[in-house]
Amino acid sequence: MAILGLLFDVFGTLVDWRTSISRQARDILSPLGFSPSWDGFADAWRAEYQPALEPIRSGREPFRLLDEIHRRNLEKVLKDLGIGALDERTLDHLTLAWHRLDAWPDVREGLTRLRRNFRIAPCSNGNIALVVDLSRHNHWTWDAILGAEVAGDYKPKPSVYLRSAAALGCRPEETLMVAAHPLDLSAAAELGMKTAFIARPLEQGPDNPVRPAGIRFHWTADTLLELADQLGGDD
Amino acid sequence: MAILGLLFDVFGTLVDWRTSISRQARDILSPLGFSPSWDGFADAWRAEYQPALEPIRSGREPFRLLDEIHRRNLEKVLKDLGIGALDERTLDHLTLAWHRLDAWPDVREGLTRLRRNFRIAPCSNGNIALVVDLSRHNHWTWDAILGAEVAGDYKPKPSVYLRSAAALGCRPEETLMVAAHPLDLSAAAELGMKTAFIARPLEQGPDNPVRPAGIRFHWTADTLLELADQLGGDD
Repeated sequence: MAILGLLFDVFGTLVDWRTSISRQARDILSPLGFSPSWDGFADAWRAEYQPALEPIRSGREPFRLLDEIHRRNLEKVLKDLGIGALDERTLDHLTLAWHRLDAWPDVREGLTRLRRNFRIAPCSNGNIALVVDLSRHNHWTWDAILGAEVAGDYKPKPSVYLRSAAALGCRPEETLMVAAHPLDLSAAAELGMKTAFIARPLEQGPDNPVRPAGIRFHWTADTLLELADQLGGDD
Repeated sequence: MAILGLLFDVFGTLVDWRTSISRQARDILSPLGFSPSWDGFADAWRAEYQPALEPIRSGREPFRLLDEIHRRNLEKVLKDLGIGALDERTLDHLTLAWHRLDAWPDVREGLTRLRRNFRIAPCSNGNIALVVDLSRHNHWTWDAILGAEVAGDYKPKPSVYLRSAAALGCRPEETLMVAAHPLDLSAAAELGMKTAFIARPLEQGPDNPVRPAGIRFHWTADTLLELADQLGGDD
C-alpha cells in the first residue's frame, strides 16, 4: 500500500538537542557565575526525560505537558549540580530552551522536499506549543502538529502513533514513521506502520555514537535529503 | 496586552462551503440521474450540522469526529430528498466534499501576511484530517491545526477555544479569534480573547446576507487582507 503520510520524531531526529541545550545553558548561567560541564548539564537534563514520562505512560500520574516536565526535571538537575537561587524568569527562560533547539543541517530542505509528495507531521513527545516554536525557529512547514498532546499520552504508547496517523487521515500501513531511535520505530512497526531510520550518530555527543543493532527498517538514510531521494517522486 | 496568536473559524470564514458543496454534489450526483436544487442540497446538509453537535456538547453522546457526523447527516439528507441506492464509494466521496471546499479569494494571501507577525491556527469544528486536506487544497500554511479534535468537544464550548490558545502557547488575552459568526466571537470574548469579525455576506447565499447586529468586536473587516492592514506590522 502506498505511503501517504510521514510522522517524524523530533528530539534527536530533527534537532540537535545536546549542542543547543549546552550552548543556551552556558549563555544563561555562566554570566551568573556557574561553570559546570555544559555538555554534562545537557546530558543530565535529558537523562531525566524518559524516567519522568514513565508514571504517565503507566497511568499512575495524569498527563502533563512536556514543558511542565522539563521544568521539574530542570529543578532537579540544578539541585544535583549545586546551582541555586535562580529567579523565576531565569528558570522559565531556561526551560524554554527546548523551544529553541537548532535543527540538523539537512532538515529544512529535507522537509520541504518530502512535503511535496506526502502529508507530514511531527509525532513528538513535545507539546504543541514547543513544536510550534521549534518549527518557527527552524523554518519548518508542516501539515499538522501531532504527537503526545493530541493523544494525551507519551511515545512509545501505541495511541500516540495511531492518533497521529488518523489525524493525518492515514491508515497505519499508509504511514511512515521517521526517527533516529530504533525503539520509536519498533513501536510504530508493531502497529503496521512503515519505518525509516535516520542516522544521527552525534545525538549523544561525539563520544557516544548511536548505532542501531540487529533491527531492520524499511528505509535507512543519513539525512532527510537521502530519504527524499529514496522515496522518490519529487522531481 | 499584545496579540501573539490568531485562531480562525474555517467553515464560512475561510471557505465558501455552500458554493463548493453545491457544485460537488451536482458533479457527483447528476450523472447518476438526480437533479434536486443543488444549493438546497448544500443548505439542507449544512442545516443538520449544529443540531448534530448538540448531544456531544451536552455530554449526552461521546465525542465523534466531524467526518462521521457529516456522513450520518448526508444519509439523512439523501433520504429526505428521495435520493437512494448510492454505493459506499459514492457516499464516501460525497462526504469528503467537505475536505475540498474552496477558500474565499482573499484567504491565501491574507493568511500568508498574517503569519509573518502572528502564530496562526484554525480553531475549527472540523477534524484535523479535514482541515489538513482543506489547507493543501487551498495552499494555506499554519503553525498548527487546532480545534474540536484537540479539545474533544465542539465550539462554542469554552474548552475548544482555551485548549487551542494554550496549544499555540498563548494566554486568552494574547489570542485573537477571527470569524464570520458573532456567536463564535462572543464565546471567545467571554474567555478574555480579542475578536475580529470578517464579513462574509454571501456565506448563506445571495438571498440570505448575514449581518451582525448589536455586537461589538475589536476589529471588523471585509477580508483577511484588510484585517492584516488593521493589525499592522507586516509592511
